[in-house]
Amino acid sequence: MTATTFFSLLDVLGTFAFGLSGALVAIRRRLDIFGILVLAAATGTAGGIVRDLLLGDVPPEVLRTIWPLAVTSLAGLCAFFFGPVIDRLTRPVMLLDAAGLGVFAVAGCNKALAAGLEWPGAVLLGMITAIGGGVLRDIMAAEVPRVLHEEVYALAALAGAAAYATCVAFGLTGAWAAGGAVLLAFAIRVASVRYGWTLPRAGRD
Amino acid sequence: MTATTFFSLLDVLGTFAFGLSGALVAIRRRLDIFGILVLAAATGTAGGIVRDLLLGDVPPEVLRTIWPLAVTSLAGLCAFFFGPVIDRLTRPVMLLDAAGLGVFAVAGCNKALAAGLEWPGAVLLGMITAIGGGVLRDIMAAEVPRVLHEEVYALAALAGAAAYATCVAFGLTGAWAAGGAVLLAFAIRVASVRYGWTLPRAGRD
Amino acid sequence: MTATTFFSLLDVLGTFAFGLSGALVAIRRRLDIFGILVLAAATGTAGGIVRDLLLGDVPPEVLRTIWPLAVTSLAGLCAFFFGPVIDRLTRPVMLLDAAGLGVFAVAGCNKALAAGLEWPGAVLLGMITAIGGGVLRDIMAAEVPRVLHEEVYALAALAGAAAYATCVAFGLTGAWAAGGAVLLAFAIRVASVRYGWTLPRAGRD
Repeated sequence: MTATTFFSLLDVLGTFAFGLSGALVAIRRRLDIFGILVLAAATGTAGGIVRDLLLGDVPPEVLRTIWPLAVTSLAGLCAFFFGPVIDRLTRPVMLLDAAGLGVFAVAGCNKALAAGLEWPGAVLLGMITAIGGGVLRDIMAAEVPRVLHEEVYALAALAGAAAYATCVAFGLTGAWAAGGAVLLAFAIRVASVRYGWTLPRAGRD
Repeated sequence: MTATTFFSLLDVLGTFAFGLSGALVAIRRRLDIFGILVLAAATGTAGGIVRDLLLGDVPPEVLRTIWPLAVTSLAGLCAFFFGPVIDRLTRPVMLLDAAGLGVFAVAGCNKALAAGLEWPGAVLLGMITAIGGGVLRDIMAAEVPRVLHEEVYALAALAGAAAYATCVAFGLTGAWAAGGAVLLAFAIRVASVRYGWTLPRAGRD
Repeated sequence: MTATTFFSLLDVLGTFAFGLSGALVAIRRRLDIFGILVLAAATGTAGGIVRDLLLGDVPPEVLRTIWPLAVTSLAGLCAFFFGPVIDRLTRPVMLLDAAGLGVFAVAGCNKALAAGLEWPGAVLLGMITAIGGGVLRDIMAAEVPRVLHEEVYALAALAGAAAYATCVAFGLTGAWAAGGAVLLAFAIRVASVRYGWTLPRAGRD
């Protein structure tokens, strides 16, 4: 398996994971099958759409290829038919989601660097790409975005994007740098869930 | 009346209908007259703005011409002065809204095809154009977007856009194809309300 | 101090004020430090990002320079460490916010005119720039945007942008026109809070 195939596979997995999370929120809100498919599509593709809009790469990729919607529709159907099962599979879903978070952060950062952005902007864009889908999902469900109150979520994406940008600054491009950065974001996210890491809150007693 | 005049008229009607729906939500939320005008404008123009952003046609049309805001402001004033009356006119308002849904779906799809998108992307963009305004309206009112839980709403827009793209693929461009596609979306939407069509929900007993 | 320095200073102050308002909402919602920084950044920069997207100036300025995020992060840290104090300083925060509102309205209108928009579109874009950050802040906090129900907020931004566009139409460009327009928006906003100005609501007894 070449590096490109490997990364395309990760990209598909990430889109699937985000689509699944959107579909599960839709089911919890008692939406019908079409609402489930729409929220799965919005969650799985919004990050990439915002990334492409901010980089001026329009029409965005999701409107030019068919696979992202095919993948999110599959995720929506899985959630529709196996919802109760998937709800019990919290750990695999969380792992998928963490993988998607890392992939999207690094891919967004990579695309931004290729478009000529400096590293601070590129790292920021990577984070926006990674969290954009989840933010839209929660806004459409009329909830405070989970990324704002879930511990160490956006921070993991930021770390992955920053690690990749650092590698590139030192001349380390290509699959190894990207893979390592994805792994870093993944590891931080999974460890934070596993060990219950928290960040400080403002004292308001 | 030429075909172009006919479609411009439909476009104005659709913008008015969506503006009206935004204004009615604003009144139910007890907003003042300026909040009503702002929500009417957001609802009536957001679909077109998102469409133009995604196609890279910037600044979007609504910033370059004056009539969309004039129309949504008129809708806002109507709702302000005749709100209780309009609330009782649920049927005409629903018919207007269904017409707007069809017009925006077909017009968005048409513009996307003209910009060189393939049909899957063009159909998707048509649907986004048609539902974008309503989604923003409900998000700004801190509600779950009606399109997600209202039966057969986005689906009607999708059907209209898909019918139009199919016609174009078979070489049928122009007013007849567009008119038929608008009528299809309109008919599906109205019939779904009239006969209470529903889509399946995920079983969660 | 030259006019350009003066306006850059105002721009920084406006970004800081909006960042602070986002951070205070995040603290009220009991978000952790990273959530506070994210909401401060979103509130302080969203207006400018939307403005740049609508004008096709991509990647937007905030991704190309480092100071906006530095300023919103500083605002977030201030709110984190001195939250209870700042909450008591409602008047200075409101004044800062009103200044930011005026600066962003005029700067947005100015950039739109420079990009070749006619005055109605430019005034509208100025208003969107000024209120965009606050709208995103409240949507992410799952609240009805304050701009929709707070009396004379968007209207003050609109007045400032319109005054500037009028000056430009009469050949008065430059710092005096801009300064006067900012002052007008600021004065309207502050007076409306001071004297409790309200706009009519739709009668619904």
